Amino acid sequence: MPHIPLPEDLPGIRGAMAFRPETAKPLNELVEVLLRGTSTLSPGERELIATYVSSLNDCYYCQTIHGAIAAANLNDDEELVKRVKQDFLHADISDKLKALMVIAGKVQKGGKSVTAKDVAYARQFGATDIEIHDTVLIAAAFCMYNRYVDGLGTTQPCDEAMYRERGKRVARDGYVTVSTEYLAAHATR
Amino acid sequence: MPHIPLPEDLPGIRGAMAFRPETAKPLNELVEVLLRGTSTLSPGERELIATYVSSLNDCYYCQTIHGAIAAANLNDDEELVKRVKQDFLHADISDKLKALMVIAGKVQKGGKSVTAKDVAYARQFGATDIEIHDTVLIAAAFCMYNRYVDGLGTTQPCDEAMYRERGKRVARDGYVTVSTEYLAAHATR
Repeated sequence: MPHIPLPEDLPGIRGAMAFRPETAKPLNELVEVLLRGTSTLSPGERELIATYVSSLNDCYYCQTIHGAIAAANLNDDEELVKRVKQDFLHADISDKLKALMVIAGKVQKGGKSVTAKDVAYARQFGATDIEIHDTVLIAAAFCMYNRYVDGLGTTQPCDEAMYRERGKRVARDGYVTVSTEYLAAHATR
Repeated sequence: MPHIPLPEDLPGIRGAMAFRPETAKPLNELVEVLLRGTSTLSPGERELIATYVSSLNDCYYCQTIHGAIAAANLNDDEELVKRVKQDFLHADISDKLKALMVIAGKVQKGGKSVTAKDVAYARQFGATDIEIHDTVLIAAAFCMYNRYVDGLGTTQPCDEAMYRERGKRVARDGYVTVSTEYLAAHATR
């Protein structure tokens, strides 16, 4: 049961956002620009970083919804998403993305864990300054989203079909659009 | 030395924000609404929560600048800020804020650490649902800001006067206004 009265029909972060639309706005804008804004990392790659960090933080809702969004962006390859969470070094992703995943994993432990060596290693595989910046911020941001979702004790249904359907919608329409819909629907009730 | 080339004259998160203004915008809007938006917790109380979490994450820049903003909001009481970081249970703050600090400290460890008992304890001292929500999100957000600042290896000068001066300005003018100024100044160079 959530620690505060969140709307029952909105699981995970959606309930928290409907409860407090003032903070939902910048939270949605941040994830939109980070995961879907202009970047040399594809949306699928960035969603894989978000999914991996959420799995390290053991946040069921976030790793499942972002895993579903990642798959929707990667030709529905759900097996790849599972592999990245379990053992990214042997997953079918680029060496550059593997090196960025190492940085993301360090950020999850704490910012000071990232070393000059980690960054040089990523550069060796072609990672740019902006890609390194965005990897650090995506990993840091999911350390926030995960704690927000779990810290409020949000409901997190085990309903694979629901996550798959939402994943496809977010991959198609984006965070701001999808959230505007359910926040408006909730506000008028 | 920063892991990526950040503007040398802008320490901490300011350099990272000037490097990537697209993400700076929602990051500033989030901290503005969380720490300075309408709330039954005073800006000083919310800055104390941010300072405490940043000290738990051992982020020198964030705990020093938010400590300075907290002090500027609390009649320049720098001793109170130090006490909260070292031993908040015996600091001169309300029992409600102490109970919210307990929740914030749990969120810093991980969202699942927050228990129904922690929340009931805060309610016993009058904490409202929104205050509990905001405490969880402030603590979660600083787990992001701290990782962002340290994960990029930003410069963090030990210059008490600089933090004190910036703290007073942010307390007076707010995050969005102050950041708009230095982001614009940097963009035109």
